Amino acid sequence: MTGAGSLLRLIRNGEAVTRADLVRRTGLARSTVAQRLDALLAHQLVYEAGGSASTGGRPPTVLAFNQGAGVVLVADLGATHSRLVVSDLAGGPLAETTFDMDIADGPEIVLENVHEAFVGLLTEIQRSPDDVRGIGVGVPGPVAFSRGEPVAPPIMPGWDGYSIPDWFSKHYDAPVLVDNDVNIMALGEHWTYWREIEHLLYVKIGTGIGCGIVAGRRIHRGAQGAAGDIGHVRLAGHDDVICRCGNIGCLEAVAGGRALASNLTAAGLTAESSRDVVTLVRAGEPQAIQAVRDAGRYLGEVLAGCVNFFNPGAIVIGGDISEAHQQLLAGVREVIFQRSLPLATGDLRIVPSRLGDRAGAIGAAIMVIEHVLAPEAVDRAIQAGLAA
Amino acid sequence: MTGAGSLLRLIRNGEAVTRADLVRRTGLARSTVAQRLDALLAHQLVYEAGGSASTGGRPPTVLAFNQGAGVVLVADLGATHSRLVVSDLAGGPLAETTFDMDIADGPEIVLENVHEAFVGLLTEIQRSPDDVRGIGVGVPGPVAFSRGEPVAPPIMPGWDGYSIPDWFSKHYDAPVLVDNDVNIMALGEHWTYWREIEHLLYVKIGTGIGCGIVAGRRIHRGAQGAAGDIGHVRLAGHDDVICRCGNIGCLEAVAGGRALASNLTAAGLTAESSRDVVTLVRAGEPQAIQAVRDAGRYLGEVLAGCVNFFNPGAIVIGGDISEAHQQLLAGVREVIFQRSLPLATGDLRIVPSRLGDRAGAIGAAIMVIEHVLAPEAVDRAIQAGLAA
Repeated sequence: MTGAGSLLRLIRNGEAVTRADLVRRTGLARSTVAQRLDALLAHQLVYEAGGSASTGGRPPTVLAFNQGAGVVLVADLGATHSRLVVSDLAGGPLAETTFDMDIADGPEIVLENVHEAFVGLLTEIQRSPDDVRGIGVGVPGPVAFSRGEPVAPPIMPGWDGYSIPDWFSKHYDAPVLVDNDVNIMALGEHWTYWREIEHLLYVKIGTGIGCGIVAGRRIHRGAQGAAGDIGHVRLAGHDDVICRCGNIGCLEAVAGGRALASNLTAAGLTAESSRDVVTLVRAGEPQAIQAVRDAGRYLGEVLAGCVNFFNPGAIVIGGDISEAHQQLLAGVREVIFQRSLPLATGDLRIVPSRLGDRAGAIGAAIMVIEHVLAPEAVDRAIQAGLAA
Repeated sequence: MTGAGSLLRLIRNGEAVTRADLVRRTGLARSTVAQRLDALLAHQLVYEAGGSASTGGRPPTVLAFNQGAGVVLVADLGATHSRLVVSDLAGGPLAETTFDMDIADGPEIVLENVHEAFVGLLTEIQRSPDDVRGIGVGVPGPVAFSRGEPVAPPIMPGWDGYSIPDWFSKHYDAPVLVDNDVNIMALGEHWTYWREIEHLLYVKIGTGIGCGIVAGRRIHRGAQGAAGDIGHVRLAGHDDVICRCGNIGCLEAVAGGRALASNLTAAGLTAESSRDVVTLVRAGEPQAIQAVRDAGRYLGEVLAGCVNFFNPGAIVIGGDISEAHQQLLAGVREVIFQRSLPLATGDLRIVPSRLGDRAGAIGAAIMVIEHVLAPEAVDRAIQAGLAA
C-alpha cells in the first residue's frame, strides 16, 4: 500500500527530502523506493534539485515536489458575482478574473461563460487544457458532493440535480469537484491560517447566512450536503417575522443583509443590499451601526447553541456584512460568551475572515489539489500511464 | 507501512480469509505476508482454522481473528449507578455486573470499588489481569480525552483533572481510555445498529440532557471535549426559568428529568426523579403525559437547530425519560419536521435507543478494541514482543 503516491505525500509535506529519508520513513527497500521515484520523476510530479548540505562525501540529491506539474481551475460562483482562478498544484494563483453574472440564468449559460473565461486565463499563462489536473466549483446552495449536483438550491433555478462534472467533461479530462460556497470558504480559511485547529466554523453573513464546518480538519457536509444551514434556526422573540423559507423567526429573516437593508429602508435610510448596509455603517450612521450590532447579537444567539453542540476551536466570520466587523463581532462575542458554557469558550477564538472574498477560490483549489494528489489517486494515475 | 496490524484488520473485517487474499489485497510479497502472519500467529491474534471450500487441490488454510486473545474491561459510570463488563476482543460480553454508587464519593473510592468488581468478574471467567488488553471508562461529565481526565465536571466533585489512566496503571499494564458517557453511548448505538450511517446524534434525556455526536463515523468531541452539551442551549420563551448553570431558559432546566419531576410535584403528583416521571406516564397520568410530550417539543426545538447545523442521518433518543418514548418522540418529531429544512429532514430517522442502558458499556468496549487493535498499535505490540 506504500505506493508512489505515499512517497509524493512525504515529499510534498517536507517529511522526506532525500531517497534515504524515504527509505527510513517507509521501511521500503531502497530499490523499491527508486522504482517508485522513477514513476514520480517520469510524471514530473517530483524533480531532483541538486545536492543538499552534507557533512562529507557526495551530497545526496534533494527531491522536491513540482507544483508546476499541472494546473487546477477554480470557479467560486455567487448569486451575482464570480471569481475564477487558475492555480498551480500548491494552491498558488497563476491567473485570476472576476465578473458579474446571474446564477439564475441557469447552468448552461453560466457554465459556458465560466468555460470561456477559463480558456482566456489558460491562454494568458500559456498553459493548455491538457495541463488541467482538476476543476473545483463552488455554488451558493446545497450540493450532493459525491455527484457534483446542486440539490434543491433555493436561489439557483434550473440547477437542481444538474451534473456540473458532466458539463465540464466535454472540455476537460480531469476530475470536477463541486461544493457549497461556504464549505470551500471554510476550507480556504482553515488551510491558510488555522491548520493547527481541528474544529472550526466559518460563518458567512451576507444577503443570507450560512456556515461551513471543519470537523477533524475535514469539511463536514452532513447526510444530504445540507450541514451548516444556520440561517433558518429559530430565534427567540421574533415570531412576527416571516422568512422566505416559510417558517417564522429564522435568523436570516431577522439578521441577514436583506433584512437589515429593508429595516433601514423602512426607517428612512437608503439601503438595497448588504453592501449598502456596510456603507452606512462606515459613514457612521447610528441606526445602521445599531442594526449591525444587533445582527451580531442574534447571530451570537444561534452560534452560542452551535458552540455548546460542536465546541469549535475557532469561529471565523466572513461575508459582506462582516466588513463592518467591529460592530458585528462585538455583538457576536457578547452573546456567545454570555450564553455558552465556560469550558467551551475558554480558548474559543472569534475572529473576522482574513481571506475575505478570496476564501472560496483558495478553498476550492485546495479541495481539488488534495483530491488529485491523494496517494491512491496518484497511484492510479501512474498505473494508467504505464498501461497506456 | 503495510505491517502485521494492517493484515490483522483485513482478517478482522473479513476482507481476507486466506494468505492468497492477503497477498492480493496488500501487494506484498508472499514471503512478507508469511513473516507478518507468523507474528500474528505467535501473538495468538490470528489462528488457522483449517481448509476452506476449494475447487480442487489442497484447500487453502482459512485465517481467523482470535477474539479470545485477550479481554477488555469496561466501566460505564453514572451519577448513582454503574455497569461493568468484561468483553472479548470482538466486543462480546463475557461477564457483567451493575451496582449502585455515588460518583460524588470522588475518584479514589469509586475507582477502588470498580477495580474490586473487575477482579471479581475476571475470576468468574477464569482470566487473569495479564489478559487485559485495554480498559474503557465512561463518566458523566466532560473529559480531556487525550489525557483521560474529567474537566470541570459539574456533578463529579473531586474528579476535575484527576488522571483515571494513572490510577489503573497501578493494577494493569494496558491502555486506559476515558470518555464522556454520552459519547460512548453514541458509539455503542452507532456500531451496533447504524454503521452504514455516517453522521448520527445520540441524545440522552435523563436527569440532565446531553448529546453524543458521530461525525464521519467517529466521535466528535470538540476542542475541549465539551461537544454535545445541548442541555444548556437557550429556549425561546422561558426566560423565567433559572438553570443550575447560572443562565436562564436552558433546555435542561425546562425539559430535563429533574425539571419535569419538580413541575409534576408542584402540580400535586409524586415524582422525585426522571424514573418517577416515566412511572407516572406509564400509569396514564395525563399531566405527566403532557409534560413528557412538551419536553419532547422543547428538545425538538433545540434538535431542529442541530439538524440544520449538522444534518445527521439519524437521531437516536435514549436515557431514562426515553422509556416513555412514544410521547417524547412524538413531540421531538413534531417540532423537528416543522422547523428544520426539508432537505435535511427528508431521509432523517428519529428513533428510540435500542441498546437502552447497555449502550455505554458496549460503546466503551468498542472504543478500547478499536484503539488496541489499530494497525499501528498492533505493529508496536509485536515490535515490543520481538525486542523483549
